[in-house]
Amino acid sequence: MQNFKMTIQYDGSNFYGWQRLNRRRNVQGTIEKKLSKLLNQKIYIHGASRTDAKAHSYGQVASFKCELIMPFNKFKKVLNDKLPEDIYIKDIQQVDDEFHARYNSKKKRYIYKIYNQKTRQPFLHNYYYHIHYTLDLEKMREAAQYFIGEKDFRSFIVNSSDIDNTIRTIEKIDIVKDKNFIYFIFLGDGFLYKMIRTIVGTILDVGRGNLGLDEINQIFKDQDRQSAKDTVPARGLYLDKVFY
Amino acid sequence: MQNFKMTIQYDGSNFYGWQRLNRRRNVQGTIEKKLSKLLNQKIYIHGASRTDAKAHSYGQVASFKCELIMPFNKFKKVLNDKLPEDIYIKDIQQVDDEFHARYNSKKKRYIYKIYNQKTRQPFLHNYYYHIHYTLDLEKMREAAQYFIGEKDFRSFIVNSSDIDNTIRTIEKIDIVKDKNFIYFIFLGDGFLYKMIRTIVGTILDVGRGNLGLDEINQIFKDQDRQSAKDTVPARGLYLDKVFY
Repeated sequence: MQNFKMTIQYDGSNFYGWQRLNRRRNVQGTIEKKLSKLLNQKIYIHGASRTDAKAHSYGQVASFKCELIMPFNKFKKVLNDKLPEDIYIKDIQQVDDEFHARYNSKKKRYIYKIYNQKTRQPFLHNYYYHIHYTLDLEKMREAAQYFIGEKDFRSFIVNSSDIDNTIRTIEKIDIVKDKNFIYFIFLGDGFLYKMIRTIVGTILDVGRGNLGLDEINQIFKDQDRQSAKDTVPARGLYLDKVFY
Repeated sequence: MQNFKMTIQYDGSNFYGWQRLNRRRNVQGTIEKKLSKLLNQKIYIHGASRTDAKAHSYGQVASFKCELIMPFNKFKKVLNDKLPEDIYIKDIQQVDDEFHARYNSKKKRYIYKIYNQKTRQPFLHNYYYHIHYTLDLEKMREAAQYFIGEKDFRSFIVNSSDIDNTIRTIEKIDIVKDKNFIYFIFLGDGFLYKMIRTIVGTILDVGRGNLGLDEINQIFKDQDRQSAKDTVPARGLYLDKVFY
């Protein structure tokens, strides 16, 4: 058995997320099925991140073990030819036996995309969150600083009672504006379910003047999801890169 | 009762086409439902074109009659606020009682979009047809000329036996290349079901060298759908403009 690491781009619009857990179309199951058929053996792949339904990826990483019964230099092309057009394997490498895409990941970078203008643009719908009201970017950048460092993010996730450890470290949140587009760039050691989307929702609430900066610390202290603001939709979220 | 004409943009990715005919999400039914609720009366809208599942619109036109129980200058905004984000009403005008979006249309312009490169781009999947092989653009432009004028398009449509009149006039087919993107721009008095997608498929077959120019006339003569080439997928097709 050899161990492989692959980097996967996908448009999440037509997927119910990464995880194979039900009968609906998902990325993991789609790749496993094609890979197993191609190599004529049952193959399980382990993704670094369980991206949500509708969320996208530029750089998801997955690892899997198999007997590679074809020349390695053809593997990537042949696999891509089998996969549907909304998934693209950017890279496959052979790695040492110990490598595991999820357990070995050190940092992850995510991007959350917004377009900020009055008029709706239907063709951006699956890829951006539309905000029609005015935002105070400077206030939002200040708000972002409240989330930096090692913190207990219990108030910013769902189903927190099922999770033993809700402490994570966010290294950086950059907020970049380019014309009418706003990008939130998150870098951290790991992110809990809906954590990024709730943090973006909270920062946006500061940006529109509905929440004061001083209230963010109170939400952290409350340790209660009810205190935090709405989550923004998954369709604006992109797993950009996994660092090892 | 007043009569209105509206121009509608939509991303067709998450719609099973324009027509309200089943329980799956469609554009016509979605607008009718919101419009009827907003104006508290049963409203039927008539679209100029029955766009296919997954096909898009920059300029679909629909007409409908209603009692407008709100100020006209608020109508467009209020209606857009009710509609989902993948539909946008660009314009609403009051028109004379006789106007009907389908029966009065004189010409329609459609665009078919392709990206032509070896490597797949998952994020273009819902909006373009991916062609990885080399195309001879000049040959394709020559091929396009065979479709210009008043012709019987029986060989280029499906279910032709159900249709009385398969004669249509195509005024122009422009084929424009911009970097790796190729656009087919069709202008004609009307297009039958799958007609554009079959013509594009046929022109592409000439472009890759699988079909000779002389064979196109033979396909017209055969009057048989089996002679024509594969239809290309609806997700590359855009209704661009309806002319009155």
